[in-house]
Amino acid sequence: MVSDLLILNCDVLQVQDERASILADHDIAIGGNRIRAIEPSGAIDPSGTKTVLEADGQLAMPGFINSHAHVAMVLWRGLGEDVNLESWFNDYIWRLEANLEPEDVYWGMQLGLLEMIEAGITSVSDHYWHMDYAARAVEKAGTRALLSQAMFGANGLAQIEETAAFAQRWDGAAGGKIRTILGPHAPYTCDDEFLRASAKKALAIGSGIHIHAAETREQTQASLRQRGQTPIEILHSCGIFEAPTILAHALGATPGDLEILADLTAPVGIAHCPKTYAKLAMGFNNLVELRAMGIAVGLGTDGAVSNNTLDLWEAMRLTAMGQKQVTGDAENLTIPQALTIASKESARVFGQAEELGDLSPGKLADIILVDLSGTHHFPLNSAPASLVYNARASDVRTVICDGQIIMREREHLTLDKDEIMANISPRMDRLRRREDADKIQTYNA
Amino acid sequence: MVSDLLILNCDVLQVQDERASILADHDIAIGGNRIRAIEPSGAIDPSGTKTVLEADGQLAMPGFINSHAHVAMVLWRGLGEDVNLESWFNDYIWRLEANLEPEDVYWGMQLGLLEMIEAGITSVSDHYWHMDYAARAVEKAGTRALLSQAMFGANGLAQIEETAAFAQRWDGAAGGKIRTILGPHAPYTCDDEFLRASAKKALAIGSGIHIHAAETREQTQASLRQRGQTPIEILHSCGIFEAPTILAHALGATPGDLEILADLTAPVGIAHCPKTYAKLAMGFNNLVELRAMGIAVGLGTDGAVSNNTLDLWEAMRLTAMGQKQVTGDAENLTIPQALTIASKESARVFGQAEELGDLSPGKLADIILVDLSGTHHFPLNSAPASLVYNARASDVRTVICDGQIIMREREHLTLDKDEIMANISPRMDRLRRREDADKIQTYNA
Repeated sequence: MVSDLLILNCDVLQVQDERASILADHDIAIGGNRIRAIEPSGAIDPSGTKTVLEADGQLAMPGFINSHAHVAMVLWRGLGEDVNLESWFNDYIWRLEANLEPEDVYWGMQLGLLEMIEAGITSVSDHYWHMDYAARAVEKAGTRALLSQAMFGANGLAQIEETAAFAQRWDGAAGGKIRTILGPHAPYTCDDEFLRASAKKALAIGSGIHIHAAETREQTQASLRQRGQTPIEILHSCGIFEAPTILAHALGATPGDLEILADLTAPVGIAHCPKTYAKLAMGFNNLVELRAMGIAVGLGTDGAVSNNTLDLWEAMRLTAMGQKQVTGDAENLTIPQALTIASKESARVFGQAEELGDLSPGKLADIILVDLSGTHHFPLNSAPASLVYNARASDVRTVICDGQIIMREREHLTLDKDEIMANISPRMDRLRRREDADKIQTYNA
Repeated sequence: MVSDLLILNCDVLQVQDERASILADHDIAIGGNRIRAIEPSGAIDPSGTKTVLEADGQLAMPGFINSHAHVAMVLWRGLGEDVNLESWFNDYIWRLEANLEPEDVYWGMQLGLLEMIEAGITSVSDHYWHMDYAARAVEKAGTRALLSQAMFGANGLAQIEETAAFAQRWDGAAGGKIRTILGPHAPYTCDDEFLRASAKKALAIGSGIHIHAAETREQTQASLRQRGQTPIEILHSCGIFEAPTILAHALGATPGDLEILADLTAPVGIAHCPKTYAKLAMGFNNLVELRAMGIAVGLGTDGAVSNNTLDLWEAMRLTAMGQKQVTGDAENLTIPQALTIASKESARVFGQAEELGDLSPGKLADIILVDLSGTHHFPLNSAPASLVYNARASDVRTVICDGQIIMREREHLTLDKDEIMANISPRMDRLRRREDADKIQTYNA
């Protein structure tokens, strides 16, 4: 068997909900974009291999999958601090976004991809504006993405055709690494007619929906007062859940909402972004309950104006710690469960459960190599514990996506940091304007 | 003015509760162990300076102060996972600690100091066993420490004389960088007679007390049932608070307890260790309330068997996010407040409010240089926001304690990582034994 890429002498993380284990001293053979074999070191014949990576005791694990992000918002990080959700939208985000030009997304997306690659994130479900520009950045980065062009109902039904055209234009691009999905913003910014039309279009073109819903308990209460339905009930009655759906947040889901979600036949998953929730004082949902009902939960970073970083090590850690706090029981959300959410479950929410989130023969080769030799990991009494509670983005050494090395020993092979920074810096004076900016929308959910 | 050390061209963090600001492009002159001047770059004459550090746009901030730790427990990190407090004590910690030999503390302390230096922590209030060995490690590391030998009441009153002798032996050592304090463990492991004798001894030798109390609400309830007093009331009635005191945790403090603490004349501060609290599902105390009452709050890491890392960047971030969650208001625990807790307030809890926690002329020169040029900080729209929400231990480049450089561009100048690891590895088989180990104590608070 001749491999395209052979990773030598690494420890390989294997994860199930109840157990995380390590295959010590193994080699990983990659052919094309897939894992061909994982065998004890020395068992795979290296002859003819195009590229050999000496991993020297580093740990191999699946690349992280970011289930919900607005990547290009990284341009504004640090600019919406210490405010509650209403002010965050109305005084910051929706004024800042009025400054956004298409080319900003191209560079902002590259910057966010650069940060995500450095943190070991190989896939992102991105929901934003000017997505042709985002797609070009993803092509350049060599990562995987599920892209949705955001839509506000107030901008008219014609958007649905436009974003469907974007979706069809890019679905399957970059050798299949780019997939697309439709992105109505939320039930509080899209009326029922708009939601119904979005769902219908998604089904017609074989796509899905990525949408915010029930972001807080207050949103659910407001929806019940104004409409007599919860946001989840609205989405359900508008047919959204007939298509595969990523639900961002669902913090305000009621017990009845959870039953709706648990009973669906189309795959619907929840993106969980705990750093944003904590920073905006939104509370946490009870993932122990959601998971017991069979609802898929993936990790997300949301945008960096709320989350500040695009780092799923942080999200994984906060997920585990947050659930212990929420349930008052430290036996909940164990280390294997946290790793499962970060890998297999995030792959499920991302719509590639069969292909990603697991290092085994036949899967797509999205692999990161993590250095656990740092002082903060020693003594390495438990590698799984160290991954959840000690590891940092800076421990990621090498990133492989779809069989291609995109960062090697922290050297970027696809994106150019200097070029990205040089293109962003001159944009910032314009992008940071807030006082005299229009709003693209008003939040009064 | 001839300086011993001159730091060129850095940005200097200045913090108050309501405002964090940056002195851009400044030089810092250090004479002996104190800051002599902070001036715009170029204004300080470098001639005759012994050592010049080119900081190249790095950010200078006060070294972190760890208000509560059991440093040498780092030996067991990752070994007490996903369990509640009672099991954590009875099935893990107090069995593992039965294996502890004095020399283990010497090496475990060095390991923890190594990790803390890499994370920019220059001072630690350490509460543990075999503290002569810990003190020797601190001397070698060149950091600052407030050391207390732990005591359980069940081991007899003679301990108080022994630990007072330790305290007197080491107080003022290492050129004043080592200070000491007495360490009765907790009101649930020390009876009133023991606590009274500890307080009396502390006052007699001009020392203070470092003690755990009201670690959870359950402890407070149990104490009320068994004794008719809260843990804080017990400490108060035993005279503990007549001496300067570090109270670890106080999560279960009642409103009445907080009034006791707010009315004290001796300095009493609370060490806040949010990562441990989250991991052990202990809840968070309401720091907004505590701070409004004038009670000092400092950051701590606790031991690494609960906290996994010795990293106050994490503690600072979790403090800010945790308080927003606890109070349900994202305007609480702002970025300037988080930075104040991490600097000036931690210095107050550590008992050196006048000397540490602030970069200004006359203060002790405990300074860290932080690199904010990483992708995860760009664009640097707000350096204070980036310090609280984006920075990682790996961004710390250079660490100065008491005017001496102890890590320079991540190269350790005092401790030897290879030597420390080589001395710890052979100890681990013995140290990890649990099934056949005795317990040093039983938790049934």
